[in-house]
Amino acid sequence: MALIVQKYGGTSVGDIDRIKNVAQRIKKSRDEGHSLVVVVSARSGVTNELIAKAKAITDRPDTREMDMLLAIGEQETIALTAMALHAIGIPAVSYTGAQAGIFTDEVFTKAKIQKILPKPIQKDLKAGKVVIVAGFQGINETGQITTLGRGGSDLTAIALAAALKADVCQIFTDVDGVYTADPRIAKDAKKLTEISYDEMLELASLGSKVMQSRSVEFAKKYGVVFEVRSSFNHNPGTIVKEEVAYMEKVVVRGVAVDKDQAKVAITNVPDKPATAATIFKALADAAINVDMIVQNSSHTGGLADLTFTVQRDDATNAVRVLPAVLKQLGGGEVKAFDNIAKLSVVGVGMRTHAGVAATLFSALGALGVNIQLITTSEIKITVALDRAKADEAVRAAHAAFGLEK
Amino acid sequence: MALIVQKYGGTSVGDIDRIKNVAQRIKKSRDEGHSLVVVVSARSGVTNELIAKAKAITDRPDTREMDMLLAIGEQETIALTAMALHAIGIPAVSYTGAQAGIFTDEVFTKAKIQKILPKPIQKDLKAGKVVIVAGFQGINETGQITTLGRGGSDLTAIALAAALKADVCQIFTDVDGVYTADPRIAKDAKKLTEISYDEMLELASLGSKVMQSRSVEFAKKYGVVFEVRSSFNHNPGTIVKEEVAYMEKVVVRGVAVDKDQAKVAITNVPDKPATAATIFKALADAAINVDMIVQNSSHTGGLADLTFTVQRDDATNAVRVLPAVLKQLGGGEVKAFDNIAKLSVVGVGMRTHAGVAATLFSALGALGVNIQLITTSEIKITVALDRAKADEAVRAAHAAFGLEK
Repeated sequence: MALIVQKYGGTSVGDIDRIKNVAQRIKKSRDEGHSLVVVVSARSGVTNELIAKAKAITDRPDTREMDMLLAIGEQETIALTAMALHAIGIPAVSYTGAQAGIFTDEVFTKAKIQKILPKPIQKDLKAGKVVIVAGFQGINETGQITTLGRGGSDLTAIALAAALKADVCQIFTDVDGVYTADPRIAKDAKKLTEISYDEMLELASLGSKVMQSRSVEFAKKYGVVFEVRSSFNHNPGTIVKEEVAYMEKVVVRGVAVDKDQAKVAITNVPDKPATAATIFKALADAAINVDMIVQNSSHTGGLADLTFTVQRDDATNAVRVLPAVLKQLGGGEVKAFDNIAKLSVVGVGMRTHAGVAATLFSALGALGVNIQLITTSEIKITVALDRAKADEAVRAAHAAFGLEK
Repeated sequence: MALIVQKYGGTSVGDIDRIKNVAQRIKKSRDEGHSLVVVVSARSGVTNELIAKAKAITDRPDTREMDMLLAIGEQETIALTAMALHAIGIPAVSYTGAQAGIFTDEVFTKAKIQKILPKPIQKDLKAGKVVIVAGFQGINETGQITTLGRGGSDLTAIALAAALKADVCQIFTDVDGVYTADPRIAKDAKKLTEISYDEMLELASLGSKVMQSRSVEFAKKYGVVFEVRSSFNHNPGTIVKEEVAYMEKVVVRGVAVDKDQAKVAITNVPDKPATAATIFKALADAAINVDMIVQNSSHTGGLADLTFTVQRDDATNAVRVLPAVLKQLGGGEVKAFDNIAKLSVVGVGMRTHAGVAATLFSALGALGVNIQLITTSEIKITVALDRAKADEAVRAAHAAFGLEK
């Protein structure tokens, strides 16, 4: 008999029938003899409806009131889920974030969990009840309702698993697990049985929609082993856990691609010490997140070129912001290319294996793909390339590292 | 500068535009120099939608989970109302029932307020903020969310006014105040400037939709003076307060009518000591509320007649339940008449004035109205009569007591 924390996302509890389906899944786990804490999100769409109401009143809603408003989405789901369990004879009790003792800092709309006081939950578990907890929300020291921001419900589940010393944490979502590549692109992509926190972190930041990196970071910090799996079937998912020795035998774990990228090229800007700082501060002030950056200062005549990628939506904004900055710096031209994809290969085994970059570049070269930018980390190589070639490139990289096996 | 508690009902905050309108009204009061605590209901319709969701899951939702679910209706309104105030430059902060320190007993879905700890509210008032409180909800000693049942938001406002020692409590609703009769029936009905708690209580139980009697009782117990007025215009409403000497000069304060009544007549039932008790216990077990009762035991042969009124919806049910009971009692017939109205005249002045009943009966007699049942209290006379004659009867009674003056 294990203590399991399960988390069901907005799609999994999207309507009354799906909530009933989740209740059946919970019943199945309970019938197998497990103790269960279940974290649920707001029904899909509800949070956006609430945001629309707030925006109909004011462009910039107060963040405290926003959290007061958004918290009701999960509060609805916990009550309905508890009712659905009662309806099939399972004792269950719902908890808001505050009732679950999830204490956060004061930063409304993106609060960080500071501590969890799970005594009431433990008491209800001991009494044989399934405990249903509202994801995404907490309370600060002065009793104000806070929300945790994007990926908040996953974080609630992982933090509760840590606080309760759960045996496992299951993140139920609308995908089957983590794959070696997007199966819609690489037909022979394989679901990974397990993956290390670091690999999952890289994938999370590379366009894999499975989980936000903050939840993976939290799990890594507290050693919470979790499984990503589907709420629409009973297939086992992917276990995410601390790196173990045998993981290193696999050089590349997977290939990720993000097709919503753009490239911004600044040319012939005077090459002075503060040039890059001035440019990137201006972009940050305009809330533009810059990703890959390459600077080339080898020009003659004291001029430099600077190229970076941004999310496609941000490209227009970057082109609007930059001319004034370049003028201030004494010259330079800016041009955006919005037909960019970002392809990455990830694997902890890379640390100890040479030649990974060479294998990737050869595979892409054989396709006639022009690599526009390159960045690397200890366990990742990322290249920017033409979006039109992205799917082919994923398949080629997937094959080059033998991931279909 | 006064401390005012205002309450806006579900219709008054029914959509975004109405919430903005409420914000303007609050601003107006604040601009006049008052401190404000504002209690709001769920937007009209929201509570019924939530109930429908629960019923789609189970016929008999757990009451604790029901309260968890229903509480979100008001939580939405408080956040949106606070945002609407911010949008017009008024500092405001929202409070759930729990945050407002509204402690109740353990009876989910119809909890009673036991105490209010309003320190945080007082602190925010002192800081110049408008405090927006979720009506209808509280928290019990173990931290569970409770709701107060029908009329709960009025009760929240009146209880907060008592706890905060507010100067006045304003109940904003969709009617202008309390009238001497329904103005749709008696065109010359007058809005009352003031009325005593006891008169308001009688009217509340007589089909006046203005307020539930429990809120009036609470106000009476704690001496909270409140005003019932419209949120759709700026007319003064009706002040409800302790009876004062001059009120007695007005013999009849108003005429109320409830046209959704039915009469059930039981004839020729054996007249034994427990007869009435057996009959009314059976009706209570079937959740049928009995109102006016007349028993006539003057039959020869040890038989009695028993007549009572019920809400029209309950008549069919009464006719279904009673035959088995009468069989057990040894005989009797039951017949229902669903064309009944109940007309009442109310006034604290009645206590010291004779002849009120005579005046009423003469007025009705002159119309040719047959009075079917009569009940009286210290400050009220009620008659049951043919529904078709009800409007005429209201006008005649209104004129007979000179209420148009």
